[in-house]
Amino acid sequence: MTDNIDLSCPLPGQQYPRVVLAHGGGGRLMLRLIDDCFRRAFDNPLLNRQGDGACFELNGSTAMSSDAFTVSPLFFPGGDIGSLAIHGTANDLAMCGARPRYFSASFILEEGLPMADLQTLVNSMAAAASTAGITIVTGDTKVVERGKCDGLYITTTGIGELLAGARARPPGPEQIEAGDCIIVSGPVGDHGTAIMSLRENLAFEEPLLSDAAPLFPAVRALYDADIPVHCLRDPTRGGLATLLNELASGARLGVRVAEATIPVRPAVHDACELLGLDPLYVACEGRFVAVLPSTGATRAVEVLKQCGCDQAAVIGEFNAEHPGTVVLENRIGGSRVLDLLSGEQLPRIC
Amino acid sequence: MTDNIDLSCPLPGQQYPRVVLAHGGGGRLMLRLIDDCFRRAFDNPLLNRQGDGACFELNGSTAMSSDAFTVSPLFFPGGDIGSLAIHGTANDLAMCGARPRYFSASFILEEGLPMADLQTLVNSMAAAASTAGITIVTGDTKVVERGKCDGLYITTTGIGELLAGARARPPGPEQIEAGDCIIVSGPVGDHGTAIMSLRENLAFEEPLLSDAAPLFPAVRALYDADIPVHCLRDPTRGGLATLLNELASGARLGVRVAEATIPVRPAVHDACELLGLDPLYVACEGRFVAVLPSTGATRAVEVLKQCGCDQAAVIGEFNAEHPGTVVLENRIGGSRVLDLLSGEQLPRIC
Repeated sequence: MTDNIDLSCPLPGQQYPRVVLAHGGGGRLMLRLIDDCFRRAFDNPLLNRQGDGACFELNGSTAMSSDAFTVSPLFFPGGDIGSLAIHGTANDLAMCGARPRYFSASFILEEGLPMADLQTLVNSMAAAASTAGITIVTGDTKVVERGKCDGLYITTTGIGELLAGARARPPGPEQIEAGDCIIVSGPVGDHGTAIMSLRENLAFEEPLLSDAAPLFPAVRALYDADIPVHCLRDPTRGGLATLLNELASGARLGVRVAEATIPVRPAVHDACELLGLDPLYVACEGRFVAVLPSTGATRAVEVLKQCGCDQAAVIGEFNAEHPGTVVLENRIGGSRVLDLLSGEQLPRIC
Repeated sequence: MTDNIDLSCPLPGQQYPRVVLAHGGGGRLMLRLIDDCFRRAFDNPLLNRQGDGACFELNGSTAMSSDAFTVSPLFFPGGDIGSLAIHGTANDLAMCGARPRYFSASFILEEGLPMADLQTLVNSMAAAASTAGITIVTGDTKVVERGKCDGLYITTTGIGELLAGARARPPGPEQIEAGDCIIVSGPVGDHGTAIMSLRENLAFEEPLLSDAAPLFPAVRALYDADIPVHCLRDPTRGGLATLLNELASGARLGVRVAEATIPVRPAVHDACELLGLDPLYVACEGRFVAVLPSTGATRAVEVLKQCGCDQAAVIGEFNAEHPGTVVLENRIGGSRVLDLLSGEQLPRIC
């Protein structure tokens, strides 16, 4: 954004080219923004009732999850903050073993945001939601002064229905047993590396794309195949290494993973070398870890490959040896502890 | 905040005095913030499962509502952004005729936010939720660089269960009939006037307090008394006048209200004169409008008074004369159209 932005009122009948404070003021301009931008993109009967909230029927075991999205930049290779705001929250529901159903979307807009960018991002949300069978039923819009936000922030909250298998045995670290194997659904570190390369203006022969994508289809396939899933979790902020530490701590078991079995794309590997990052700590937005009895491992990997997770792989197992500790065996037979990072590796990655 | 803030690491064992970017990085520092600040304040078994989402049983008609809170300043007479983030969303559920139950809370924190302020606001949320019978089951924390937020923004999303009366006849503008009376539950304009007076450094003999408070108890009382409620709505951004316009438009009926019957506190009236505001367009955060058959009006006002709404009053009615138009009769018998405002009256009021 340049410093001199024309926020003046357009001619009658024309659209404002940028968001102004009055778009959040509760008056005619806000109602028009909601109608022209949000309601048109998210169109559905529940949203169209225009109440203070949405009403629908729910029966049985329900999952609820919420994420605030502040990723910078707003547009990146393989996605944008709009589609990410749908996939991110939908994937958290999938990790509960739930089918994502009803979403709310709340927007904090910065004065001066180009209206065309807002419309593109809202359309991207609508497309991601539609593909995933999600209905956006309610939401909110606030506008803050220039310099009190960074374009826009989106918070989505989702409600989902637990699959029968997840109702019978809710997936979680407390279900993990010594001997359980750890499967990752695909190569790790793509999302964070794509964002960081863009920020640092790095270009590679093989383009780096975010892996942001819905995880529910693969989760459903595991349950449909009667795989006895013990735990599901997606490695977002902090990456695979942080996730494994959380699981080891939650299960009060040790984790041993073999570096050579963890899929990392060559381009991600090279970019991480240049950026001084360890791909095991870099966020994914379209991968998950499934923990299950080792007897089900081969079948689970087959099922995942059948639904597009070509590089799904068993990467290690839980043991009773060093509760709370994650040990990485490297390619030459040595081993080291994969610890939690104290601080920040990648700010504003999601 | 001053420009020179010490964001350095404190001595081992000590708390960081301010939020740093690493508090949102997904590592050890973020997990400690979640444990020490959020989980301690919101403590409950559903939250404590620490999954990607929360799971619970829901049966039947469900309402869902979401609001982003960006109010400035964060602390104001009669409340703060923390309690407001609970009351605001809970009240939207109450306006659906629903009992607020499960909430998510997502935080966007600005680097440099004093940790003591964050803790105070989180404690305030916890207290407001506890009083209202609300369980905060899931959430998220992001940290953005200084100058990309204004202290903190909070988005809450709530799920509620519809009361039997609301299930039988869901309250909404489409239920409104010509002849229905309009009741307001108390004096209007308190919240917005309190915020604006604070921003403008105005002091009055009678202190101006926000009216932010839970509306569900009064709504339940109306349904418990078998009052045939047709519509419920709370006048937040845009105030009573904007709300009446939305109802007139949604019901395709006209509205006639008598200025002399609309309760406005003398201090609010005086402050609005000084600030150049019309109290009818100023936000409330603890009042609502109920629309119901005129035969139930007296009883409804009695019921509201019994549950603390001392100044509840019938202020007008719907008619078939001028669909979509709100007419205000003034104190000397004249009348004027109360229109929607085009633009912004009060930025960042909630």
